[in-house]
Amino acid sequence: MVILGIDPGYAILGYGVVFSEHEHQHAIAYGTIETPKTQQFPVRLKYIGDEISKLIEQYKPDAIVVEELFFKNNQKTAILVAEARGVVLFVASLSEAKLFEYTPLQVKQVLTGYGRAEKAQVQQMVKLLLGLPSLPKPDDAADAIAVALAHARSNSLFGKFEV
Amino acid sequence: MVILGIDPGYAILGYGVVFSEHEHQHAIAYGTIETPKTQQFPVRLKYIGDEISKLIEQYKPDAIVVEELFFKNNQKTAILVAEARGVVLFVASLSEAKLFEYTPLQVKQVLTGYGRAEKAQVQQMVKLLLGLPSLPKPDDAADAIAVALAHARSNSLFGKFEV
Repeated sequence: MVILGIDPGYAILGYGVVFSEHEHQHAIAYGTIETPKTQQFPVRLKYIGDEISKLIEQYKPDAIVVEELFFKNNQKTAILVAEARGVVLFVASLSEAKLFEYTPLQVKQVLTGYGRAEKAQVQQMVKLLLGLPSLPKPDDAADAIAVALAHARSNSLFGKFEV
Repeated sequence: MVILGIDPGYAILGYGVVFSEHEHQHAIAYGTIETPKTQQFPVRLKYIGDEISKLIEQYKPDAIVVEELFFKNNQKTAILVAEARGVVLFVASLSEAKLFEYTPLQVKQVLTGYGRAEKAQVQQMVKLLLGLPSLPKPDDAADAIAVALAHARSNSLFGKFEV
């Protein structure tokens, strides 16, 4: 199955596409969607929605896994990221893929066995499990691959949502 | 021109459609979109997006005005409302309507001349300006009409965003 993992953001959003069959997984594609800073916010939201649609059309994922927001002190930023995340969930819900939400803690738990693992540990596991020569860059893309990989390896244990 | 005002929410979202010509405005329609509590959150987001699309198709607004979020103490709620608001902005950005964002303070300022006016004062102005026999119900619908009306009467002074 093909899994599209997404690390939500409004300025930069990471995505990772992972192919998974039984115990084997490999990365098909990963990268970021960066929205133009000079544009008004709704234009940036539209850009995100359009780009996510293109990814879905291109890779035809069986599952789309969107990371849940980690609450931050800066509420203004949290609100903007949440608005972008709403767009991602909406566009994903229009596709035929099954839709899942994972918390950062669940991703760490699945990949390292420890929910409070350091970011570097998670990244090392991503590199190891996918047999990559180096860590995917930037971090947003690596985080998105981790989300997709966590779903592949969790047998959907944590997948809270499925249309 | 036809103006669609929206008071965002994820459990209940208010909308109001106002026809405006020079100094004259009247309400064409208003109501709420209520999402099924028993459904998973992404299903509720999809429902909101679909219903907003139907409203746009039905009333063909020239302008869509979405109220900005008033920050609340409950961050979890704020995040959910923001995700729903992102869906509204995205769907609106797909239409031919011009898109505007107003803060609650701007809406009050335009309608009552005072940014910190009480809710009851705003509602009375909505009733008066639209020549309605009684206050629109529920509050979410009345708030949405207020947003549309504020845009009609502000000459877009506060409209921060236009595609």
